[in-house]
Amino acid sequence: MKILVLNGPNLNLLGKREPAIYGRITLQQLEKMLREAFPDITLEFVQSNHEGELIDQLHRAETEHFDGVVFNPGGYTHTSVAIRDAVAAISVPVVEVHLSNLHARESFRQHSLTAAVSEGQIVGLGAMGYRLAILYLVERARQKQKR
Amino acid sequence: MKILVLNGPNLNLLGKREPAIYGRITLQQLEKMLREAFPDITLEFVQSNHEGELIDQLHRAETEHFDGVVFNPGGYTHTSVAIRDAVAAISVPVVEVHLSNLHARESFRQHSLTAAVSEGQIVGLGAMGYRLAILYLVERARQKQKR
Amino acid sequence: MKILVLNGPNLNLLGKREPAIYGRITLQQLEKMLREAFPDITLEFVQSNHEGELIDQLHRAETEHFDGVVFNPGGYTHTSVAIRDAVAAISVPVVEVHLSNLHARESFRQHSLTAAVSEGQIVGLGAMGYRLAILYLVERARQKQKR
Amino acid sequence: MKILVLNGPNLNLLGKREPAIYGRITLQQLEKMLREAFPDITLEFVQSNHEGELIDQLHRAETEHFDGVVFNPGGYTHTSVAIRDAVAAISVPVVEVHLSNLHARESFRQHSLTAAVSEGQIVGLGAMGYRLAILYLVERARQKQKR
Amino acid sequence: MKILVLNGPNLNLLGKREPAIYGRITLQQLEKMLREAFPDITLEFVQSNHEGELIDQLHRAETEHFDGVVFNPGGYTHTSVAIRDAVAAISVPVVEVHLSNLHARESFRQHSLTAAVSEGQIVGLGAMGYRLAILYLVERARQKQKR
Amino acid sequence: MKILVLNGPNLNLLGKREPAIYGRITLQQLEKMLREAFPDITLEFVQSNHEGELIDQLHRAETEHFDGVVFNPGGYTHTSVAIRDAVAAISVPVVEVHLSNLHARESFRQHSLTAAVSEGQIVGLGAMGYRLAILYLVERARQKQKR
Amino acid sequence: MKILVLNGPNLNLLGKREPAIYGRITLQQLEKMLREAFPDITLEFVQSNHEGELIDQLHRAETEHFDGVVFNPGGYTHTSVAIRDAVAAISVPVVEVHLSNLHARESFRQHSLTAAVSEGQIVGLGAMGYRLAILYLVERARQKQKR
Amino acid sequence: MKILVLNGPNLNLLGKREPAIYGRITLQQLEKMLREAFPDITLEFVQSNHEGELIDQLHRAETEHFDGVVFNPGGYTHTSVAIRDAVAAISVPVVEVHLSNLHARESFRQHSLTAAVSEGQIVGLGAMGYRLAILYLVERARQKQKR
Amino acid sequence: MKILVLNGPNLNLLGKREPAIYGRITLQQLEKMLREAFPDITLEFVQSNHEGELIDQLHRAETEHFDGVVFNPGGYTHTSVAIRDAVAAISVPVVEVHLSNLHARESFRQHSLTAAVSEGQIVGLGAMGYRLAILYLVERARQKQKR
Amino acid sequence: MKILVLNGPNLNLLGKREPAIYGRITLQQLEKMLREAFPDITLEFVQSNHEGELIDQLHRAETEHFDGVVFNPGGYTHTSVAIRDAVAAISVPVVEVHLSNLHARESFRQHSLTAAVSEGQIVGLGAMGYRLAILYLVERARQKQKR
Amino acid sequence: MKILVLNGPNLNLLGKREPAIYGRITLQQLEKMLREAFPDITLEFVQSNHEGELIDQLHRAETEHFDGVVFNPGGYTHTSVAIRDAVAAISVPVVEVHLSNLHARESFRQHSLTAAVSEGQIVGLGAMGYRLAILYLVERARQKQKR
Amino acid sequence: MKILVLNGPNLNLLGKREPAIYGRITLQQLEKMLREAFPDITLEFVQSNHEGELIDQLHRAETEHFDGVVFNPGGYTHTSVAIRDAVAAISVPVVEVHLSNLHARESFRQHSLTAAVSEGQIVGLGAMGYRLAILYLVERARQKQKR
Repeated sequence: MKILVLNGPNLNLLGKREPAIYGRITLQQLEKMLREAFPDITLEFVQSNHEGELIDQLHRAETEHFDGVVFNPGGYTHTSVAIRDAVAAISVPVVEVHLSNLHARESFRQHSLTAAVSEGQIVGLGAMGYRLAILYLVERARQKQKR
Repeated sequence: MKILVLNGPNLNLLGKREPAIYGRITLQQLEKMLREAFPDITLEFVQSNHEGELIDQLHRAETEHFDGVVFNPGGYTHTSVAIRDAVAAISVPVVEVHLSNLHARESFRQHSLTAAVSEGQIVGLGAMGYRLAILYLVERARQKQKR
Repeated sequence: MKILVLNGPNLNLLGKREPAIYGRITLQQLEKMLREAFPDITLEFVQSNHEGELIDQLHRAETEHFDGVVFNPGGYTHTSVAIRDAVAAISVPVVEVHLSNLHARESFRQHSLTAAVSEGQIVGLGAMGYRLAILYLVERARQKQKR
Repeated sequence: MKILVLNGPNLNLLGKREPAIYGRITLQQLEKMLREAFPDITLEFVQSNHEGELIDQLHRAETEHFDGVVFNPGGYTHTSVAIRDAVAAISVPVVEVHLSNLHARESFRQHSLTAAVSEGQIVGLGAMGYRLAILYLVERARQKQKR
Repeated sequence: MKILVLNGPNLNLLGKREPAIYGRITLQQLEKMLREAFPDITLEFVQSNHEGELIDQLHRAETEHFDGVVFNPGGYTHTSVAIRDAVAAISVPVVEVHLSNLHARESFRQHSLTAAVSEGQIVGLGAMGYRLAILYLVERARQKQKR
Repeated sequence: MKILVLNGPNLNLLGKREPAIYGRITLQQLEKMLREAFPDITLEFVQSNHEGELIDQLHRAETEHFDGVVFNPGGYTHTSVAIRDAVAAISVPVVEVHLSNLHARESFRQHSLTAAVSEGQIVGLGAMGYRLAILYLVERARQKQKR
Repeated sequence: MKILVLNGPNLNLLGKREPAIYGRITLQQLEKMLREAFPDITLEFVQSNHEGELIDQLHRAETEHFDGVVFNPGGYTHTSVAIRDAVAAISVPVVEVHLSNLHARESFRQHSLTAAVSEGQIVGLGAMGYRLAILYLVERARQKQKR
Repeated sequence: MKILVLNGPNLNLLGKREPAIYGRITLQQLEKMLREAFPDITLEFVQSNHEGELIDQLHRAETEHFDGVVFNPGGYTHTSVAIRDAVAAISVPVVEVHLSNLHARESFRQHSLTAAVSEGQIVGLGAMGYRLAILYLVERARQKQKR
Repeated sequence: MKILVLNGPNLNLLGKREPAIYGRITLQQLEKMLREAFPDITLEFVQSNHEGELIDQLHRAETEHFDGVVFNPGGYTHTSVAIRDAVAAISVPVVEVHLSNLHARESFRQHSLTAAVSEGQIVGLGAMGYRLAILYLVERARQKQKR
Repeated sequence: MKILVLNGPNLNLLGKREPAIYGRITLQQLEKMLREAFPDITLEFVQSNHEGELIDQLHRAETEHFDGVVFNPGGYTHTSVAIRDAVAAISVPVVEVHLSNLHARESFRQHSLTAAVSEGQIVGLGAMGYRLAILYLVERARQKQKR
Repeated sequence: MKILVLNGPNLNLLGKREPAIYGRITLQQLEKMLREAFPDITLEFVQSNHEGELIDQLHRAETEHFDGVVFNPGGYTHTSVAIRDAVAAISVPVVEVHLSNLHARESFRQHSLTAAVSEGQIVGLGAMGYRLAILYLVERARQKQKR
Repeated sequence: MKILVLNGPNLNLLGKREPAIYGRITLQQLEKMLREAFPDITLEFVQSNHEGELIDQLHRAETEHFDGVVFNPGGYTHTSVAIRDAVAAISVPVVEVHLSNLHARESFRQHSLTAAVSEGQIVGLGAMGYRLAILYLVERARQKQKR
């Protein structure tokens, strides 16, 4: 089983940037924590600040037959019709994750263009949100196999 | 450890009502599934169609020292300032759960009044969303104890 | 044949409350008038000021196999997603009725959340609106039987 | 007793046009059905695609002393201040009728300019809506005579 | 002279809930303070988290001939057309009171549906607001008697 | 000198229709009053309820070399881009006139599509507004001749 | 007969300021032109850039029994509730005049707060607009005397 | 093969009206140019300023089995729900054409009610747009025949 | 103890202006009534129609150490950011008072720019509102002294 | 003659992605079809998911003297002011093409930021739209040469 | 060279008022600092809380031939069409300065009516903003002289 | 001292692109002018059309300890939450600069997402704006050192 953990703009600064909002865990620590939690799953981690690169990666998830994408589109969540179209264009299930509780922040963070075409969305549960998203994708794959 | 699973209006019809949107699992089956998944946790299940009753239950979660609330406010999510105030008034952590992907439905379902004062929100992951929410509350309590 | 006539908040004051808008007929007189007009039909009358109670009644219409609901949701028409969900959740046909011409009143009365999921809506024809709604439900049942 | 049944734009295509929305009954069949249902009433039927013609007809209802108008303004419902002014200008009671449930369609169909100055509105009850509207006008005239 | 002091949702938590906003006085202390300030007036205190119950109480104020209602509708202030209709339906004068300065809080708290049909509104003057509201109702009754 | 006085929908009912708003003078009396006030000017009067006819008339004003148009577009003022385009398309000066004070009426009457492409607008001065508009057009022509 | 011609902010620059929009006539020339056109009427001219001064002048029109006010509120037209209240507070008829065609300019110039409480409004007819406004007030006074 | 070229309000003035926006070609020249470009196709040209007439023509395209309609609805593009309904009601393919680039003009010209129910839309390519639209309809018919 | 009673535009006309809305009491009578009600307090009364003057007075309240301001900003309530800034700039507590129930009037009167930075607001309780506001300021000062 | 066919995000998936909306033709087939249709014209094809790359390409069209650009900006159509500025910055004519009928899709697809600064726009005519756009650019160049 | 430094409402309180937002420098210190920084330039300082006074001063800048105005309109920035008109009416270049970063404050502070007709705007750079604005005006005058 | 001058999309075309709006100075000339004005400061110039690249550069300003960033985000100013987040994420002070007066252009250019998290903004002062921004950053650093 193969899952892509795709992180968008500014998440390379995780742990250093506004820790009151985003927590103190770095992207490297998040990666390590997830690998330990899911030793049997192939996890691939990509981070990019480039909208086009994120679209390319979503396309690759399709052509390389990933079983799921855990996607934190960062600031592009609210502005990118192009990324929304990429999520809609692929058949791989995508779960959107946000570290902070967007609903408690600026109003322009309260609408997600990408959520409507994702499987679902986990918001405000910190680094734990990534773990829950992978758990969901694993469970989903298991139920599909049964049928 | 004691968690309240609080379901709002029309969730008593789960499994019968618009199964294409909400899935085929009934509220009884959801309860059974969760009890099996968390045998060591005291889970209390309440469902009500009454806004005031849901507020009373949230208050009770505080006075009876619950460790967390998994809350699906149903249609009140989008309209009830009173429930929002109740969630904000208590110190027990609340995770909001929605079975269907609200972002892919009518526009009036895309704003949550309650999410801003909850810990976070899990949307569109079906019955699995409840399990993930409990997992989060368990993990959160564990980390708090450590400190 | 069995029809539920469900009246929402403040309709218990009918005839006493702002008669220039709502007319001078009381809820008791309305009930009597309708029973006389439809002697062969079992009419059940329920009035409640409680949103949750109205939802419970709509659910009951389903479980007790009513042939139709004539529903005046009063002030909840414009604010209750929860009642809308209840109307959508049941298969019993619902006709929404309003005594006054909402379109000629405050702007917040000009959008109905419940109408979109009802069969249809009769507005501004006073007490006569209830009679026309029952007539429609009777006719509808007759045509369904033919097929 | 004399009632004008006034149909607006595209209603000449009734039965052929988008039958899933508007039903399979033609304008001729609707006319026949209504004449049979009200053998004692003089029913006059006019259909026009022209906004100005509909205004002329509403004026004629006044000058030729009709007892009521059953009016389906079609697409002009949502855009014509001029027709609204015509309905307001005459003293003949007007009941607005729509075959389909406008509230369940595009948002621009959810505001009626004409309803506010009509007696009331019947929406979504199909061809039956015309019959109920005439019934209302008959009843209304009877009650007026009594006084 | 008989006045109903009607408190809406979450006001049972007064003094415990977000004291920075609502102050440290409890509902019991508020009641005691008001009884002491107005020893000659029959004060009745009701608190409910249920929208329907608040409507029932407003109706009761009418049928049991209260001289005034001091009403803090809490979160329902901004969302309940049904309560607005209840206030408009009764002839007993209602003064709306809010402990905190709503104008300095979230934008959804800045519109009151109920204020337009009340006598007036006192906002942001804390527990003192209740005392001023009763004073107003007493003075109003005195002036009415004179005439 | 030749001026077209063009009246839009429902103005044929002038004097009979809502006299509290539009005054008691009929269209015939208005015509007579204006002819008497301007005996030296060729005044042509056209009234139509048809949007297309009004456009045709504006075109005719151009091709038949009128010196000005006094135009009351009635309800089309607020909705007709097509009439706006006709006014913009011709070089004959147009003065828009409204009998009632639109600014004191419904909000949808407070925006004029046609005014922006007219010379100017006279609002709320009753039948006198037509006289002032002609006076302006006469004066304007005189000043143009001088240059 | 006594009429106040009240000019608001920046109109002291008339003739010098943006002549393409406001024309080349100065305030002094406008005054002279109007005095010549109405030799039998007492015309008083006041110009002020101060909102409060304009309110004081409107009050004075009432207390000193003027027969009418020709009022160009300039930029305050679109922003001053206080001036609107002053116009509403007095019984002297006010005609609002604007030199340029506001409807053809920035969108914030297309709503007038003051017009709704004035008799009417003349827009875009240049300096001629003042003359027409006085003519209207003279005519209006004459008709009132007759009655 | 038979195509209707339907032109809406003010297009009879083509070549004379605002040539900077609409070009210098007249409707007669446009007709001639198109007949020369498509000698094998029966082209019928209709222009009307009347909304109702345009609806009648769209209906006729259906009943007289045209293979396509090239439609420039002029100012009705932005305001006519009735014409939109007519386009939706017929099965003949409609291509909407606009001479000028609507997106670069007033904001009210930037929403088309009719485009959503047409096959597609060509905007801003001048008289050439008509030729391209016919080309599309010819090609479309050819491909349909193949299947 | 020293309190400034500051009245904004048009309040000099109190008692004469629209008495149905503002009551029949004059500003002089209001002043007398308040002096009698609070014989031990130094009350200073200022009324001005000038926005700048009101700002100057608010500054003076600070520099001359007033204990409170009772402020009716009249029409400036809804439009003046400058007055809002003045209220925010001073440390003297300000209570906003309005004679009429703004919530029951035009929509532009339903937002107060100044209330958010005041202590609180009393609306719709007539002249009595001033008395209650002073009472509040007296009580507030007393409680502050205790601490 | 040299034309750049520039395709934006997700168009590399053409033919595979949501074929019900975008058709079954792939980008390679589209390229082949266009080369065959215009054998005498140098067509250059570029596709990129990167906003910045599309801007670079538009600049290159200018510096390398292309005769026109056929541009499908995909999801960036609705969100990119930067691409709009690039289109406005160059003098090469740009025709915007969209495969699907944007007007019949989600509301956020109904506003194009880029269209206003393009020559024009072809929407909803599928792959044929590209051919028509090139035809237009060829014709446009021919007419320019003549002059 | 002669420059007017014009400060609007509440800036007389500079240094005392909300120093966290506006800094601790007083208006006197600002004046001194600027005089020292530009010893060769005639700087004139005016502060007023009165909208009309600010308009008068802007007019004076024109008639007394100032070389530039550094203008902080304070709260009038967001509300005064009259001041905007004054800035537009004069030919003296105006640079708008704000001490605090308006974009990081309340939403009503994020639109400037005056900026569009000024040369430009400096926001959020504290007292330094005034110095930069003068520098710009000096440099601008130098470049103009060269030409 | 080390300052990054970061220019966003289309600024590579400076001097060639719409010179009426952006001036005739090229990016190379701007660079030269600034180096001459600040010979003692290390100025680094980066221009990119890529959103992601601009984010990378802002991150680099932090990791490579720049003393300030002068940032012209071009078209991304109005659309990029991702760039806003990058500006907020770093501790280096950022001054936003725009050559043209955005407030006098299209409405979508009047809101800046990035300004709220920058130190401040200089708008409409042309190339001079960059010089003033550097001056500010130099002065700011000097004052910080003193403390």
